[in-house]
Amino acid sequence: MSKLLEEHEVYEGPRFKVIKKTYEADNGEKYIRDIVCPGDASLVLPIDENNNIIWIKQLREAVDKVQLELPAGIVEPGEEPIDAAYREFEEETGLKAGSMEHLISLYPSIGYTNECVHVFIARDLSQGVKHLDADEEISDIIRIPVEECYEKAKRCEFNHSNMNVALLLYCAKYLNK
Amino acid sequence: MSKLLEEHEVYEGPRFKVIKKTYEADNGEKYIRDIVCPGDASLVLPIDENNNIIWIKQLREAVDKVQLELPAGIVEPGEEPIDAAYREFEEETGLKAGSMEHLISLYPSIGYTNECVHVFIARDLSQGVKHLDADEEISDIIRIPVEECYEKAKRCEFNHSNMNVALLLYCAKYLNK
Repeated sequence: MSKLLEEHEVYEGPRFKVIKKTYEADNGEKYIRDIVCPGDASLVLPIDENNNIIWIKQLREAVDKVQLELPAGIVEPGEEPIDAAYREFEEETGLKAGSMEHLISLYPSIGYTNECVHVFIARDLSQGVKHLDADEEISDIIRIPVEECYEKAKRCEFNHSNMNVALLLYCAKYLNK
Repeated sequence: MSKLLEEHEVYEGPRFKVIKKTYEADNGEKYIRDIVCPGDASLVLPIDENNNIIWIKQLREAVDKVQLELPAGIVEPGEEPIDAAYREFEEETGLKAGSMEHLISLYPSIGYTNECVHVFIARDLSQGVKHLDADEEISDIIRIPVEECYEKAKRCEFNHSNMNVALLLYCAKYLNK
């Protein structure tokens, strides 16, 4: 297995750092990898009392599109992923979750980023306080029945990897799909 | 909706560039986003004649782990995603695919990267020629029955987002899971 010889930071921005790592392969050849280090994130699959999934519409600058998405956000330094899930869910939807169940932790793009996304199922929802960051654009929440979301996923209407895993895995585990 | 005011490159490495974009929100406030631009990738879900999925074991430097993975690779400039799928599949497994069916195109981490991953189902497999890049470490292929892979996914044994979507969506669409 390859051996890490050296690493150093080559870029630091507001959202992530880039670390350049030099490895030596088993055959003695050296090679480098640039790794994006954005920290971890939490993603929430919120299920209401009528078996609807709660979605938000959010502008995504990386692809210049408004997307139907699940609530999600960055885990702050020193914060537990589950606490980030509770916090981001309330900030983005104005709803409070009574419980958060860990579903899975995912690597979105393991070739060049070390980000890990922790997925939680939020239940027992009640009224909370919406509080968006200054640079977030999120419209009102949208409730869609779980079965309808599953059919949408099967028709490939969602194009966000982590959201698809959250939805398809939830349906596989809990709806015996 | 926010308006893009300006963008410029702040980092260029062997695997990706970083572009800094400045936006103006509806309320007049300016904010910036760093976007990783790694180009697109193709991911292959290979199904053999006995309904096994074909896996590879690969070292992933971003997380310093050897992972069970599906064959995947970067779409070269001027290349179609489906051609990258055929090429990478043969290079990494030593097998040739007789057909490639487009399943879905995914954004792995839309908050900070514009990468799009195109997922294909490979069928009608025959012997080809393995050819790894100098910096790739991939062991022999591993064949696991589709149903067993689905159970593994339900037990959260796979932690790569795009692979999970490929597997769960395939099972949802084709095995009526």
